[in-house]
Amino acid sequence: MTTTDTMVKMVLDRWNGSITSGDTLINSLPAEKWQQEIAPGKNRGIYLLGHLIAVHDDMLVLLDLGQKQHPELFEAFVKSPDKATPNLPSSEELKQSWTRQNEDLRKHFEALQPAQWFEKHTSVSVEDFAKEPHRNKLNIIITRTSHLQYHLGQLRLLA
Amino acid sequence: MTTTDTMVKMVLDRWNGSITSGDTLINSLPAEKWQQEIAPGKNRGIYLLGHLIAVHDDMLVLLDLGQKQHPELFEAFVKSPDKATPNLPSSEELKQSWTRQNEDLRKHFEALQPAQWFEKHTSVSVEDFAKEPHRNKLNIIITRTSHLQYHLGQLRLLA
Repeated sequence: MTTTDTMVKMVLDRWNGSITSGDTLINSLPAEKWQQEIAPGKNRGIYLLGHLIAVHDDMLVLLDLGQKQHPELFEAFVKSPDKATPNLPSSEELKQSWTRQNEDLRKHFEALQPAQWFEKHTSVSVEDFAKEPHRNKLNIIITRTSHLQYHLGQLRLLA
Repeated sequence: MTTTDTMVKMVLDRWNGSITSGDTLINSLPAEKWQQEIAPGKNRGIYLLGHLIAVHDDMLVLLDLGQKQHPELFEAFVKSPDKATPNLPSSEELKQSWTRQNEDLRKHFEALQPAQWFEKHTSVSVEDFAKEPHRNKLNIIITRTSHLQYHLGQLRLLA
């Protein structure tokens, strides 16, 4: 196993472990919990779930894996704050999207070779990437795992 | 810059960025907030702050950088749940410990060469490390950043 293989394994293990923790938590929460605020006056569970799906959807673009599958979620769950958008998808629909999305991302991630993770992501230019090689695809996984954990700590409060 | 250098930078950048976010949040909270629960019936702010310091203290041992500086915090903030221990340190004392600890960790981290981060941490045996080279020092930073973000998402609710 080369150092590159080891590095990719470390980062993907932490992503996959975080998704698995998320699965367990998300599948344990009944429909009524998703309408509750995680703390008085703060975001509702359903907003955080939609937010995670919308942010992870954008990884397909950043990692050059294809187009967004849920572009309609970006406005309601990233650009807008909670409680600003009427007619959100149901928690059941979002849970299904979460599960399908993770199956899809897992297949994409497993198909990438270790060296490909050190190629540039799509939001950095060739010129900038030459000077800043850390702005690679693997770094997207590092930052999104960090973001996921932040919100899992909050969603956990509904359990 | 080698791939090893790049990888170490990516992981340490995310750790340092998380610590900086933590600093901003922690220094913004007045003393009375630390005694509040992050959500009804959940951990208090002061417990989460002590918990982070105790967990990060253990990194000194795991990374073979020295002995714990706050061994007395482990029982109250890791082994015991919140509200089980009388006479906890004040939030002011914990904030000072948090700041000093991060200065100390930063110096240690900057002194390590990139290749040293891929050496085994102290809780894995030489035999197991030969088979599982991902159980290295850099992986401790990856998992502890994940843990830190989880609890920062919760502490944020006090702001």
